[in-house]
Amino acid sequence: MSGNTIGNLFTVTSFGESHGPAIGCIVDGCPPGMALTEADIQLDLDRRKPGQSRHTTQRREPDEVQILSGVFEGKTTGTPIALIIHNTDQRSKDYSEILDRFRPGHADYTYYKKYGLRDYRGGGRSSARETAMRVAAGAIAKKYLFERYGVQIRGYLSQLGPIIAEQLDWAVIETNPFFCPDADKVAEMEAYMDALRKEGNSIGAKITTVATGLPPGWGEPIFDRLDAEIAYAMMSINAAKGVEIGAGFACVTQKGTEHRDEITLQGFLQNQAGGILGGISSGQDIVVHTAFKPTSSMRIPGRTVNLQGEAVEVITKGRHDPCVGIRATPICEAMLALVLMDHALRHRAQNLDVKTALPDLPAQAPDLA
Amino acid sequence: MSGNTIGNLFTVTSFGESHGPAIGCIVDGCPPGMALTEADIQLDLDRRKPGQSRHTTQRREPDEVQILSGVFEGKTTGTPIALIIHNTDQRSKDYSEILDRFRPGHADYTYYKKYGLRDYRGGGRSSARETAMRVAAGAIAKKYLFERYGVQIRGYLSQLGPIIAEQLDWAVIETNPFFCPDADKVAEMEAYMDALRKEGNSIGAKITTVATGLPPGWGEPIFDRLDAEIAYAMMSINAAKGVEIGAGFACVTQKGTEHRDEITLQGFLQNQAGGILGGISSGQDIVVHTAFKPTSSMRIPGRTVNLQGEAVEVITKGRHDPCVGIRATPICEAMLALVLMDHALRHRAQNLDVKTALPDLPAQAPDLA
Amino acid sequence: MSGNTIGNLFTVTSFGESHGPAIGCIVDGCPPGMALTEADIQLDLDRRKPGQSRHTTQRREPDEVQILSGVFEGKTTGTPIALIIHNTDQRSKDYSEILDRFRPGHADYTYYKKYGLRDYRGGGRSSARETAMRVAAGAIAKKYLFERYGVQIRGYLSQLGPIIAEQLDWAVIETNPFFCPDADKVAEMEAYMDALRKEGNSIGAKITTVATGLPPGWGEPIFDRLDAEIAYAMMSINAAKGVEIGAGFACVTQKGTEHRDEITLQGFLQNQAGGILGGISSGQDIVVHTAFKPTSSMRIPGRTVNLQGEAVEVITKGRHDPCVGIRATPICEAMLALVLMDHALRHRAQNLDVKTALPDLPAQAPDLA
Amino acid sequence: MSGNTIGNLFTVTSFGESHGPAIGCIVDGCPPGMALTEADIQLDLDRRKPGQSRHTTQRREPDEVQILSGVFEGKTTGTPIALIIHNTDQRSKDYSEILDRFRPGHADYTYYKKYGLRDYRGGGRSSARETAMRVAAGAIAKKYLFERYGVQIRGYLSQLGPIIAEQLDWAVIETNPFFCPDADKVAEMEAYMDALRKEGNSIGAKITTVATGLPPGWGEPIFDRLDAEIAYAMMSINAAKGVEIGAGFACVTQKGTEHRDEITLQGFLQNQAGGILGGISSGQDIVVHTAFKPTSSMRIPGRTVNLQGEAVEVITKGRHDPCVGIRATPICEAMLALVLMDHALRHRAQNLDVKTALPDLPAQAPDLA
Repeated sequence: MSGNTIGNLFTVTSFGESHGPAIGCIVDGCPPGMALTEADIQLDLDRRKPGQSRHTTQRREPDEVQILSGVFEGKTTGTPIALIIHNTDQRSKDYSEILDRFRPGHADYTYYKKYGLRDYRGGGRSSARETAMRVAAGAIAKKYLFERYGVQIRGYLSQLGPIIAEQLDWAVIETNPFFCPDADKVAEMEAYMDALRKEGNSIGAKITTVATGLPPGWGEPIFDRLDAEIAYAMMSINAAKGVEIGAGFACVTQKGTEHRDEITLQGFLQNQAGGILGGISSGQDIVVHTAFKPTSSMRIPGRTVNLQGEAVEVITKGRHDPCVGIRATPICEAMLALVLMDHALRHRAQNLDVKTALPDLPAQAPDLA
Repeated sequence: MSGNTIGNLFTVTSFGESHGPAIGCIVDGCPPGMALTEADIQLDLDRRKPGQSRHTTQRREPDEVQILSGVFEGKTTGTPIALIIHNTDQRSKDYSEILDRFRPGHADYTYYKKYGLRDYRGGGRSSARETAMRVAAGAIAKKYLFERYGVQIRGYLSQLGPIIAEQLDWAVIETNPFFCPDADKVAEMEAYMDALRKEGNSIGAKITTVATGLPPGWGEPIFDRLDAEIAYAMMSINAAKGVEIGAGFACVTQKGTEHRDEITLQGFLQNQAGGILGGISSGQDIVVHTAFKPTSSMRIPGRTVNLQGEAVEVITKGRHDPCVGIRATPICEAMLALVLMDHALRHRAQNLDVKTALPDLPAQAPDLA
Repeated sequence: MSGNTIGNLFTVTSFGESHGPAIGCIVDGCPPGMALTEADIQLDLDRRKPGQSRHTTQRREPDEVQILSGVFEGKTTGTPIALIIHNTDQRSKDYSEILDRFRPGHADYTYYKKYGLRDYRGGGRSSARETAMRVAAGAIAKKYLFERYGVQIRGYLSQLGPIIAEQLDWAVIETNPFFCPDADKVAEMEAYMDALRKEGNSIGAKITTVATGLPPGWGEPIFDRLDAEIAYAMMSINAAKGVEIGAGFACVTQKGTEHRDEITLQGFLQNQAGGILGGISSGQDIVVHTAFKPTSSMRIPGRTVNLQGEAVEVITKGRHDPCVGIRATPICEAMLALVLMDHALRHRAQNLDVKTALPDLPAQAPDLA
Repeated sequence: MSGNTIGNLFTVTSFGESHGPAIGCIVDGCPPGMALTEADIQLDLDRRKPGQSRHTTQRREPDEVQILSGVFEGKTTGTPIALIIHNTDQRSKDYSEILDRFRPGHADYTYYKKYGLRDYRGGGRSSARETAMRVAAGAIAKKYLFERYGVQIRGYLSQLGPIIAEQLDWAVIETNPFFCPDADKVAEMEAYMDALRKEGNSIGAKITTVATGLPPGWGEPIFDRLDAEIAYAMMSINAAKGVEIGAGFACVTQKGTEHRDEITLQGFLQNQAGGILGGISSGQDIVVHTAFKPTSSMRIPGRTVNLQGEAVEVITKGRHDPCVGIRATPICEAMLALVLMDHALRHRAQNLDVKTALPDLPAQAPDLA
């Protein structure tokens, strides 16, 4: 495989460049019989879409998805679902200045070294535009997981630069341009972003993604653990630099008595594990944190070299997100959905007939809810 | 795939339970013609072996590896290399007390829910004993990467609970039982571990793994990025809860001007990226941090339930590592080696004929060395 | 995987239904830097296109392929090449009569049992229209194999019902609508087909596909042998019922002295092996025969059942090929190209550094040429 | 993948050389909870074992299989099942004469060209000894398919050189050393083989393999069709040169009215399709024919070249099967079992919830039984 496919039983194979005629993907392995329309997919695409507020890139792409196959009379057929989004706002001229120079912090130099060519048009294949197809494919997985298994996948911005969301109110998330779950921090974030934009700089962010309603027993042992595949999926998003499950790096200074989640018949007493033990779901919420670096596209000049081997300066004038993390929430949800969907199918392939004497434990003891 | 195989072109398929007759693996995809003996592999196995100091489990296993195939007249043949370690010290009676109860923080409950059975013998397949085969397979990858490409893979314990290694002296690492690179912290770590052992508790740790000498251009775009596959590999290790590449979670509060690694003809001016841009190696050092949780096996009793659905208490009397991170360094090295080896082969499959006008940049500008 | 992807390093993932908006595929793994235009692909598509003579279906589809990604400034970029053909001639009304009945010899009943639905529109996903994308993807592989390795892939109709092509003149193949290599048999085939069409019946055929110029050493041992993967690829074509390599079923009555291809320094003395020994190419021509059944779409009524569980009669009035084998030659070439391309890449991944003292033997001893 | 793994959800990864310390495999993906002992596997291994009659190689290997993992308290655990057979009768000296020469019809030359080395010991990895592990793994699949789905897989020798089995009596097959289902032909076969052995020559054979009891709906569309994967599996057996499904090559001269299997409410009226339509099982018997070439190991000298590039003569003095087809029946059964097992799991992954109004049709109309 050349890296453009994710999944084993529910696979997504993506194609397309930022400034080519279209981007798209083939979703293979969706069980037949699920109701599906373009509107189901568009919902999440619109959440990711650029230009929704002044805090994201002003590049305007309608990002209208079309289903080319795999759906007949409003239902999935079980055959490949091809999705396509035609590129409409391809202002290639924006990129003429960086045509021959390698932007620091971008994939320009590494793609050039790998492929021997420069697709200077907005990053070509390495553009974050590609994540639109992840969101589109993830929407299908989310729908199936929810309708078939009651699994719900949601995310939020847990930190924007120095500003930490301290409250988790699911109702707040969709009411502000940041997917911030803490209403008290929204104004602060807006002010921070406005100052940053003036400065011409960019900033990192942390996204938290949560899946609720999973039964225990999903995931594989050893290598294809649920947490390993989640780490892979999250780290594959543009600009991701770190992934944590549950306690994450905090576990480094935890003692065993603090970290282990004791079990009662009323449920687990806490969720340091982030819902995964031994690579397999415990029935508790899956909790994932992902760190996104500040974009390297900015108006502040930086040192670099060009194709001719000369030291030069580079400024990125194109329309860019000063904080790529702001639009990352739907992408993280999609990636978690893709992994869980794959494991839902893998689970029934191998563990279909498993019966256990002990009923599933409640996710969490009531006093912790 | 049922989760027991890693890799695409250089694959490792592992088998075995903690207390079965043997553990082993098949390494497939090693190019022919490399000199290989059991001693080459034993070296790393011995670094991981339990019972090397009073700070790790006293379970004694010679962990002697045998090559069953794939090597002829001292050289790899290009066919599958089967490795086996016979289990010798299987004190199953140790586990009789936990036979019917689910240890908190372990995979007991999740494996039971997935498979419908309890292999109570030391965790069965979920035992960290399985990681021996990762180290064995990784030793083959390390050897190939070094001899063919000059790539060197090394790791160290960068943090043990509250104690942070502040100096990186490669010569110190193998001189203490912790793989600690800071000579000044070794005594502190010993005292900490002694106190912890008395307390009957356990502690988390952080391991840093570094690969030097990679050419730019290794890795795939979109999903199978080098960093994504490294995250997968590291998170697949028992007890791992977080993975960072380069700056990792620190990037959340970084500005773009801080994070982007500017480029000069003398090399990159820093390495926040951890050697990977757009999922592809830049030629700088690959730097990976992995968080390991404190083991949940401890003498301090904890609440849980048993197979009969009763609330019970559990104490783990077996011989366990109070800090699994201590022995994790060779495992992390092995996992990084497996990922890089796979991408070395993938690179030449697709990018064999690539020529670039610009020579490879030096890894780092000299004043940063 | 859900069956719509072929290949390991050079993969093709296909989508689309006979009467949906479009069919297409993603070709992943093509090395960067190869010149590629739509015209390169169209050439083979036109060879497969229906309606080229009175002997194939009169369904008219321009089958115009569009490249959506993976090519920049006329060269492959190394990223996924998406190909699309919009469906234009979708006379769905033709199929209204078979809407609820299962055509014998078709996939109607088995698809219904697998997916729980009837996409009655021209067979939906099971339509042979899907093979257009194989031809398109195969054209890319053929081009690369020829330009990079000098490997040439060609095919011909070796038998049409009772009529056997007895001469192999490569120059004749493209001069008649059958891809028949024996000029003396073309008239006979035309007469046979005319009679068959009047009768409303259909007929089987045999296609022979040949690859010349392969170096020895391509292919994998044990399962992914070159011949095994060729058998898979050929048998995956609609209507294929048998595959032979070299002597094929004739070897059942051969003695060892007849079958073994003796070796001289001037080359092999014959080619019973069909160019593959132990699953690996010998440097001789790869020779493959594929049997295609007579299509089950015909005007002569047949017994079947319908969705309501009633015994009914079925006539297929749509526009169909009375001999699907006639258009199968470019498809067989494409499938052979896809397999060889994948193994070319696999070969260099694992066997890049192999040196042998003995030079490659000539493909065939001169007196056999 | 380097070719030593078969399957997607039920995978077998094999290792070992003819004259190394052991051969073995890892079977991954077997659902948990199935009773399994070494005796279950040994049964089929003994059917394949050499030295059972004077008509097969006199090499004596007890071929005693040991289960190293994946079975606990007599039941499969759902984790990898490792199987091993230690090599005991390794008369390497037999091979000293062919040490530097390439036996015609063997993999000697192609392996040398691929790997750059000669493992002259009985063919090394290319030896048919490797098929023992296929039989062992296949025995597990056969057991699961039968116990869980009522699917039964059986095979027989349908032709030995010129002698065709004309009657199919399942009770006869295990009563003679040929797996011949026609009691009237056994004496003829014995006489033929005795003459052949005296002559020092070898002969081809045809094996027919049948699976009964499959439900309709197993298999995938497009590439991973059931017939395509069966063709792959069968062609991957040493010495296989052709594969047919149902009518196979006979379909070349069939008309559509002859070939299509008409459908009635009592079942299909014939089975030209061999139980597969559009790549998916119809519920009829799966019928597969495989052609095996005469072995190239024989006492009659042949021309070849050696490592030094000299023309030489070669005689194979080792102990070889004069007709490898004689022992191929259990191997073909195993390969069919592996493919069906994989598709059983794939089917429930994707098609678990499929409901159809029309009940499954009987496999065959009663007057055909």
